[in-house]
Formats: sequence, C-alpha cells, structure tokens
Amino acid sequence: MSGIVDVARLAGVSKSTASRALSGAGYVSPATRDRVERAATSLGYVPSTNAQSLSTGRTQNVGVVMPYVNRWFFSEVLEGVQSALLARGLDLTLYDATPGSQRRRLIFDDFLARKRFDGLLAIGVEPEEDELDRMLSLGKPVVSVIGPSPRTSVITIDDEDAARRATEHLLALGHRRIVFLGAGSETRWPHVESARVAGYRAAMTDAGLADEIRQVPAVLSMPDGYAAAVDMLSDARSRPTAIVAACDEVAVGAIVAARRLGILVPSSLSVIGIDDHEYADMFSLTTLRQVPREQGITAVELLEQHIEDPSRPPEQITIKPRLIVRNSTAPIGQGAIPRIDLA
Amino acid sequence: MSGIVDVARLAGVSKSTASRALSGAGYVSPATRDRVERAATSLGYVPSTNAQSLSTGRTQNVGVVMPYVNRWFFSEVLEGVQSALLARGLDLTLYDATPGSQRRRLIFDDFLARKRFDGLLAIGVEPEEDELDRMLSLGKPVVSVIGPSPRTSVITIDDEDAARRATEHLLALGHRRIVFLGAGSETRWPHVESARVAGYRAAMTDAGLADEIRQVPAVLSMPDGYAAAVDMLSDARSRPTAIVAACDEVAVGAIVAARRLGILVPSSLSVIGIDDHEYADMFSLTTLRQVPREQGITAVELLEQHIEDPSRPPEQITIKPRLIVRNSTAPIGQGAIPRIDLA
Repeated sequence: MSGIVDVARLAGVSKSTASRALSGAGYVSPATRDRVERAATSLGYVPSTNAQSLSTGRTQNVGVVMPYVNRWFFSEVLEGVQSALLARGLDLTLYDATPGSQRRRLIFDDFLARKRFDGLLAIGVEPEEDELDRMLSLGKPVVSVIGPSPRTSVITIDDEDAARRATEHLLALGHRRIVFLGAGSETRWPHVESARVAGYRAAMTDAGLADEIRQVPAVLSMPDGYAAAVDMLSDARSRPTAIVAACDEVAVGAIVAARRLGILVPSSLSVIGIDDHEYADMFSLTTLRQVPREQGITAVELLEQHIEDPSRPPEQITIKPRLIVRNSTAPIGQGAIPRIDLA
Repeated sequence: MSGIVDVARLAGVSKSTASRALSGAGYVSPATRDRVERAATSLGYVPSTNAQSLSTGRTQNVGVVMPYVNRWFFSEVLEGVQSALLARGLDLTLYDATPGSQRRRLIFDDFLARKRFDGLLAIGVEPEEDELDRMLSLGKPVVSVIGPSPRTSVITIDDEDAARRATEHLLALGHRRIVFLGAGSETRWPHVESARVAGYRAAMTDAGLADEIRQVPAVLSMPDGYAAAVDMLSDARSRPTAIVAACDEVAVGAIVAARRLGILVPSSLSVIGIDDHEYADMFSLTTLRQVPREQGITAVELLEQHIEDPSRPPEQITIKPRLIVRNSTAPIGQGAIPRIDLA
C-alpha cells in the first residue's frame, strides 16, 4: 500500500506539503493541492486515519452549533471545519440553532444532552449565558468562533480594529462625511455589530469628526444593504461621500444601489466593506479580508488540543484582517474630474 | 406541562397549523410561524420527541452527503433538512463530498462504512455508479435530491421543462437571438446542466430557430456569469437580445455585466434565470422558481417512510418550477423607446 512519501514523490512536493494538502490544515496553493490529490487518487492512498490516537475510546464525532447554515460566513467556516475533521477521521454532527427559534431551544434542551460528541464548536452562536452554561455543563470541550466567550477558547477577528481601519482608510483619502451602513435594525450578532460600530465611532472621534458620526440601519445582507442605500443616497443634500459597510454583502448592495441612482463609484462615492466575500473582486470592492474557512480549520485544531488535554486553559486567538485595496475607494474631490469608473 | 393544544390556543391557530409551524414540515406563513414559536416559548412547550417511534432502536441519526455546503442551493436544502430532522428528534451527520477530491473518496471508502445513521440523503451528489453501489450496499435507505437516480427515491425539479419554459417565455416576447449562458466549461452537475441545455435547444428547435442556438460556457456562479457575459456582450455585432441563464446567480452576473457596459435591461437585453435565488427580487429577475428548502423537507419525509418500511419501492418526485415574471424580460423592439429601466 502506498504511503504519504509515495504521494509526495509522485506529486513532486515535500512530504509535509503533501500532508498539508491532504489534511486541509495549513496553506497550500490550489494547484498544488490539486496535484497532490491526483497523486493520492492515482496511488490509491488513504490516510491511515491519522488521528486515530485522538479518537481512541471516543465518539469520533464533533458537534457544530451555528445559527445559520445558509449565510456566507457560516457556510465557509463549516467548509473549513468539515475538511479539517475529515482529515482527522472525525464525523460532524450539525446543530442549526437559529436565534430565538423553538428549534434552538430544542437543541440546547435536548439534542446536546445526548453528548454524542467529543467536543463542541460554537460558531457565531453568541450564546446567552444560560446556553453557554448548558454547553459547558456537558463536561466536553467547547471552542467558539466569534467572541467574546471568556469561558471557552475562541477564534475571532478583531471587529473593532477592522471597522476602525476601514474608517481610517477613508479618512486618509480626505473623506469627512462617512456613514456606517448596516447595524441596529435587527441585530443578529450583537457583539460583532457593536464592535464594528465602536471601531467606526472611535476613528471618527479621533479625527475630530464626532459630529459627523451617522449610522444607518440595515440587516447584514445584500438586498437589505441595497434597500437601505437606495433610501440614504436618494437625498442628495444628506448624501455621504463615503460608506463603511458592516460587511461586504451590505457594501455590494450599496454599490449596486449607487449605480442604479447614477452615482459613480468611486469618483462620487467611496465604499469599503469587511470580509473579502467571493463577490468582492467582481465589484472591485476595497475591504478588510477575513478567511472564515481558515477560522474553521483553526477551531478544529484548537478543539483537538482541548480534547487531548481537558485541563488546558481557554485561549483567545484574535485575527487582524488585512486591508485589500481595490477600486471602490478613491480620494475625495475627484467627483468633478471625468475618469474611467472601474468599480 | 403545556401541550400542543395550549400552544395553538395561545397563538390563535389550529392544532395542525401549530404542529406544522413547529415541525417545519408543510407551509406556514413566516408571521404565523413566528407567533406559534413565541407561544411555544412562553409556555415552555417542548415537543415530546414526536418521532420517538421512528427512532426506537435506531441511531436517531441521518447522514447527509452533499458536494458543497457553501453554495446557495445546497445550503438552502441543508436548512430544510436540518429543520425537518430536528422536528423528528433526529441528529444530522454531514459529509461534504467535493467532486473529485480525496475527501470524497475518504467519505465513500471509510466514513459511510461506519453506518452511524438510519438512512442517507444524497443531495446533488450525482454519484458515480460505484459510489451509488457503495451507498446502497450499506443496507440503509437512500433518498436523492437532484436526479436521475433510478435505484433510489429522488426529489428533483424538472430541469429540462424549466429551461424550455424560460426559453418559451422569451420567444413569446418576440426574441429570436437567444443565448444559453452557463454550461459546458466546468461541469459540476452534468445531469442538471445537460437537462437545462436540452430544454433550451428543444424550445429553439420547436420554434424553427435551430440555427440560432448558441451556448456560452460559464461556471454556475455570479462572478463567472459576470465575466462570461462581459465577453459575450462586448461584441455589439453578435450580441443577443435575450439570455437564458443556467441559474439565477449567472443571470444576476449577466445583468451586472450589461449595466457595466451601458446595455439597458430589459429594454435592450432580456435576462431570465432558474432558481428564484434570494437576490432575484433585488435585480427584478424573471425566473423559474424552485424552493430548495422545501425539497430538503420533502426528502426527510420520504426517507422517514423508507426507514419505516424498508421494502417500499423507490419513488420519483418531480417538481415543475413556477414562472415568476419580474422586470428583467420585455418584448423585443422596445430598445428604441425611452422607458424607465426598472430591472
């Protein structure tokens, strides 16, 4: 039977690269991953359930609790979690806990109590205190994605920093009338939203623009961002020169709205998001990049460590998103100059 | 302890409506569902694991195999499946089987053989024959979503009919130069794509327009639809007057591309999709509606019947999508008439 060394030789990569490519843990370029997978397939290589040691005497199963499976961030995290669990020979049981639903109560009251897992990943659950109590009372390790969650390990981006840097990018381009779009109306993620609003407000205040602070509510989706932006941009007198969107989907909605109204992006309106969503490139969106798939992989790695060592103290991993400058942001004052509108 | 009758009384609905609202099986308006869930929560009502009879002596778990968790159709189906399983007190184990990946081989070679489920849902797997053999050889019921799968029960929309009716809608508006956008370059769903192409070709042929048949490749995503449409629409001489898009995401990509090029939709270009994606309304997209969430619920109902009665023969449920006319399609020849462009 072929081993990982044979796969690596056939693919023309190092053993550790081949291992990374097949486990989904750590970065490998798509082309390399493809080459390694082909080599593994052609050799009939099957990892000898590399983490059997981890799973000995256990359920070989991890529970994943998340509020939505059909939103970009969550489905991307789930993708990463699934790939990291498969690489470890572990099953994934999914609990879709929509906030406020009867279903969510059922999960916390009933399903989780079956304890059919070695550990739990709580992804964007922002659990209420009693829900967190219940998860921890099961006596299994819990790792959260999206914080804060001081009683569990957590992987999260620095939301306040992301919004602050988005705002500072616009300030550096000379903008003053900067609106924050997408918080407040129907708050599904109170922590994420309030942290991003706080980052915007801090940057505006530090720039001496506390009087210019303006927050426009919108649910965090493209259609809602679009609708809110149409309303806001329709009044030329109060129109901002720049928008910090609470996430990329809202930002893309705002760009589509601007185009419908004949407002040129970026020459008359700059728009910046947070995410680097799969649509960001198509709309030339400047944004703060997070990679939810990698957060999912990291969460599994951390959970594995907690399963191995139940006495390990909780740890917080905070990721600072990277600024990706595309063509949806530009210096203020270019509105009068005819230019090719690239966004 | 409160029963379903108390919940129904407090919510002001019938017992069967309350039951439907809490189980997620069958149609209930969002407002009613919300009212019933509130009533249930305020009364502390917890369904007495309504389907314990179903699960007695079983794993109380259903396996779900799907190629992607982060694409619209699949995440919506998963939402429906999850909600219907929870209502039955059943767990969900997820197997994310990306086509051609090492991971997919692992799932079929290794994970499924653990048989930690009472039945399997194969969603859009379009399994190769040996994969299907392997699933069936486990001796557990299998229900497919997206066909054809003559050896298992299957829920699917009539893809050929959907594309045929999309094309006929454009033909009835007087269009002749109608392009099919989105098939052929990287075929992830050979059956779905070929059935949709066949429906388009049949409608064109029946209208005596076999010579006008033109298929433009694009992967089934918004950015790829956008890129392919920019290429296709940039040459004014060969520009079609109408596009049948293989799915809504491709259709929205084409509308965004047309706007970038200054081509008015629908006055100079009609676009129709298939799906009724969550973005369809925002782009005023005419489309053939399918509701993947309901397909997921139906699949669970069907699987439940097969688990109850293992001798039950396979059955095929085919859904004909409904035409939803919005403002992205219009009669040909209005291009010269100034009009408000609503799409």
